[in-house]
Order: sequence, then structure tokens, then C-alpha cells
Amino acid sequence: MTRIGILGYGNLGRGVEKAVAANPDQELVAVFTRRNPASVSIATPTAEVLPTEDLDHMTGEIDVLIICGGSATDLPVMTPMYAQKYNVVDSFDTHAKIPVHFDKVDHASQAGGKIGIISAGWDPGMFSIARCYSHAILPDGADYTFWGRGVSQGHSDAIRRIDGVADARQYTIPVESAVEAVRSGSRPELTTRQKHTRECFVVAREGADTEKIRHEIETMPNYFADYDTTVHFISQEELDRDHKGLPHGGSVIYSGSTSEGTNHVIEYSLKLDSNPEFTGAVLAACARAAHRMNQDGQKGARTMLDIAPAYLCAQSADELRSHLL
Amino acid sequence: MTRIGILGYGNLGRGVEKAVAANPDQELVAVFTRRNPASVSIATPTAEVLPTEDLDHMTGEIDVLIICGGSATDLPVMTPMYAQKYNVVDSFDTHAKIPVHFDKVDHASQAGGKIGIISAGWDPGMFSIARCYSHAILPDGADYTFWGRGVSQGHSDAIRRIDGVADARQYTIPVESAVEAVRSGSRPELTTRQKHTRECFVVAREGADTEKIRHEIETMPNYFADYDTTVHFISQEELDRDHKGLPHGGSVIYSGSTSEGTNHVIEYSLKLDSNPEFTGAVLAACARAAHRMNQDGQKGARTMLDIAPAYLCAQSADELRSHLL
Repeated sequence: MTRIGILGYGNLGRGVEKAVAANPDQELVAVFTRRNPASVSIATPTAEVLPTEDLDHMTGEIDVLIICGGSATDLPVMTPMYAQKYNVVDSFDTHAKIPVHFDKVDHASQAGGKIGIISAGWDPGMFSIARCYSHAILPDGADYTFWGRGVSQGHSDAIRRIDGVADARQYTIPVESAVEAVRSGSRPELTTRQKHTRECFVVAREGADTEKIRHEIETMPNYFADYDTTVHFISQEELDRDHKGLPHGGSVIYSGSTSEGTNHVIEYSLKLDSNPEFTGAVLAACARAAHRMNQDGQKGARTMLDIAPAYLCAQSADELRSHLL
Repeated sequence: MTRIGILGYGNLGRGVEKAVAANPDQELVAVFTRRNPASVSIATPTAEVLPTEDLDHMTGEIDVLIICGGSATDLPVMTPMYAQKYNVVDSFDTHAKIPVHFDKVDHASQAGGKIGIISAGWDPGMFSIARCYSHAILPDGADYTFWGRGVSQGHSDAIRRIDGVADARQYTIPVESAVEAVRSGSRPELTTRQKHTRECFVVAREGADTEKIRHEIETMPNYFADYDTTVHFISQEELDRDHKGLPHGGSVIYSGSTSEGTNHVIEYSLKLDSNPEFTGAVLAACARAAHRMNQDGQKGARTMLDIAPAYLCAQSADELRSHLL
């Protein structure tokens, strides 16, 4: 059994909780929160809700701590802080800052003799793995990543910060003709605008200037200006009824060749009903790997690229060879 | 640099040779053959063709030996034989006998302090990896493997053994409606007949009874009897013109859920212009991993499930984290 602690109980923490409940080899010991524990109600009857301070003295009761915080401010502090005392797993996804985060976690994990798995999930995570295998097999090739159709929480939040907006949901949508061009093996050069479109469902406050809101969205730098963006104004009832879920997914398509005129296309794709539940399930599998690698005497920071697939899977190596290979 | 030897120079050996030439960190030292070396002409001007006996005294010149033989009789003997002296890679693909083969290679590799990677390629190999990751992440789910559209050499050979057949090519074709049913997440129960059809292009000898040949193909146990099979009689010229390549591919589709009504579909698919060239490229990547793992002090048998993705890729761990993660 791997005894799991979850730090942070938002959408992702709840996704991890469901994944741990579905894994027969894992048990949830406690959810740790910065809120008042009495105000947090969790789904696992056998687990406790505890203040984060209790992590100071629970190293004997928890094998892996899964840290479910935001990449902007939470994880850069929390993961290195706990990596010395616990095997940890996080989903740090600010691509440009991964090397710095890795070094900090590695330093702490090495010092404590623990394993720290960072940047787990599906991108970075499963999509990174797909890119890595393809580059390893076909050095003469190019990878393309398409996201969606799915809800981008960052873009939804950006719209909600606009004056006059009560609520919003943004979908990232891959351009089908671009996906087809990549699948054909032609290795096209694609601009940002050619790869994805953005569709926004916006609830305006009463009396707000919707044309002004539309203009602000469409011209917002980084988030929307480089994309063809469609804005729909709908009621709060419609948003709650039709856009409540957090579906996502996408695909990594790799197009490469082994000799003149001999081409190969490798595609890894995900269609997820719930982004946080799937990401939580990946983190739970990584917790299994972290515990096993540490039991094997390993220590230090890892990404999913450094983990053999068998380490993630509940079955034994013998079972995997007999049934899955 | 990883110094490579190739044992066996059929379609697969030639595929490995192309892959090694495309990898800047690998160099081909020699092709080893049981034929008269003077009769074998290879594509790499800097490499030699040598008799297999020379492997007795070349351990200092070769880092990894890639063994390109058949699974029926060659590999069960050759891989354990060379695994004690060399890091080896093979593509053993008789699923039921993998555990026995693994144990034999493990025994030899452990004794010699070498790494022996068995059953590399795309199935077993990349498809096994896709199955393993999906089961690890979503324990409540089911995997489906579809092969094709592609040439099955075993089925082509079976047709060629029929009396009156001069030549033949057999394509395995996934049933599109079955693929769609699996993609929908409904986890259908599918019989062998519902998953694939078989299409045969047959050159009959002059005066042969084509209806008898057709009947013999359609009713052949194991190979065709459980499938809807179509047989086309064509001329040798047509076969050579239209069916010369060895394309293949397929997909592993996994359908699983994280909670009631929350479903996820994971798909890994390959579209390969040349089965032996792609398989050869996978073996070359495994040779890189075998060399590195052995340099790290590891020994014993491995399958691709036991190899971290980063080990297969030419880039350093730092580069992978900065650019691919």
C-alpha cells in the first residue's frame, strides 16, 4: 500500500482523491489545507482533513505527498519546501521555468533521500512522453501539438477579469485542416493562428457594453490577439447548463522519415471528459512510481521522461510481460 | 558514440542499418551473417560484413549487438547465446513465449554484466508501452488493439505455401465501425471477426484452380477462418507494381473512466510506410538505451516497459526538460 497525502483541495486535489480511491494499492491518509480544516469536506470517509502545519511531523504516516497547487505562486515554493521530508509529486506546468524548478526540487530531494516528481500530468506529462519517444525513434522529423477541443481555465479567467463580465468559459479548438495537413506527413509550417481557434461564452453584467467586451477579448495580447476568436454572449443559466464541465484533450502528432520517401506518422491523442480528474489520475500513478523508486534506493528530482512505464503500473513486471507486452 | 553490430541482414537488418546511419550518436561497425560474407553487400561504406564466428572475439569493438532474426527459431537461441558477451537488442514477438525468453536472456545478461533488451519494436514495443501507461493511469478501463491497414508477412507466407500459388500479399484491415465504437468510449465486446478483415492479392500459377485456392485461404484455421476474407487474383506484374511495399501500423485505443459518467479515451496510433524501417528505428533507439543503462552499471534483461523514455532519446536530460517537456 502507498499512503498518500494531498496538499490543496481544489479541482485537481479532488481529481487526485478520486484516482487514489480507484487504485487498490493506494490509500488516502489526509488532505492538507491552508483553509480552516473544519470548513473542508472531503469524499473519503477514512481520511482526515488537516492543517498544512501537521506536515511538519507526519513523515512516518505518508509515503507520497501530492501537491495540488498553482504553478504561478504555489508550487515554486511548496514543492521544494516539502521535497526534503516527503516523496512528492506536482504538476508544475510553466514550461519556461521547469529547469529552475527541477534544480530546486532536486536539491531538496537529494538532501532528504526522497524522490520528487515534477511537471506530471498530460502536458507536460503524457504529451512530453509522446514527443520524447517519437524524437528518439525518428530523429528526422517534427512534432506538432494540438490542444482541445477543451476548456482553458487560464483564458476563461482572463475574460472574467474584463470590466462588465460576470462569468465566462473559453474553449481552445484545433483547426481540423491543420491537423489533417500534419497527419498527411507533409510537415507544414504553421502559425499560431493556423493551429487553433478560440471560442468564448461570456455572461455580461446588466447594462455592460458587449461590443466593448468583445473588442477587449479579441485584442487581448498573448491570450487572444494571435487567434481567430469567436465571442458568444449567453445568460448565466445557459453557461451553467451547457458549459459546466472541464473537458479537454488534444494530440501530439509526429511526422518523420527513415529514408527518402519513407514516412511515418505517430499520433498520441487524448479525449478527456474531465481535465482535473485525468490529471489527478496521472499524478496518482506517479505517486506509485515515486514510492517504488524510493524503495529501490533512488533519490532526487524526476520528470515523467525519467520514469520507466512499468514503475507507474500497479501490476508486477511479470504480469506486465505476460499480459500487456 | 555507440558502436553497433547487426546480426542478420534481411528486411529488418537493413532497416536497422538505415536507422543507425540516421543517428548521429551511433556508428555501424559490422553486419554479421551466416551466409558467405562476400555474397552480402551492405549500404554502409565504413562497415564490414563478417561471419558470425567473429562475434567470439569482438567484444571490445561493439557496444550493442542488434539481433535481427526470426522469433520462431533464430532469436530463442541467438539472443541468450550472445547476451552474456554483448549488450543485445532483439524484436522477439511470440507473445506467449516472452516470459521464458526473458528469463533465459536475463540469466545470460546478469552473468555477463550486460543489458539485454528483448521484444522491442512496435507490437510488442510501442503498443505495449501505450497499453501500460493507460492501465497505470485509468485502472477502470479496457484496451483495444487494431492492426493495419498493413501487410502481414506471416499471412502472406501462409498463402504462398498453398499448392498453385506463385506469390501473394495479405493486408490486415481494421473494421472502421469497430474502431469508431471503441473511440466512442462504449467499451464494446468485439469478436475477432468484428475487429479486422483480411484482403489477399494472389498470383496463381498457370492452370491452377483458383476457386480451390480461394476456398483453401478462406477456411485456413488460425490464419483466415475466423475473419471475413477477400481474395483477388492478379498478375505477378500487378503484384510487383502495386504491392511491393511493407506498410503497416494500427492503433491502441484505451477507454476508461475516473468516476461515474466521466470517461476518457487515449489513442496511440502509427501509420508506417515501412514496417521493417520503423521497427529498425525502434531497435536502434533501444540500442542507445542499452548502452547507457549498462554504462550506468545496470545489467540483466529488460523490455521497453522497463526503460525510461529519456534513455532512448539522443538529447541529454537537460535538453529534454528544456525543449520537449
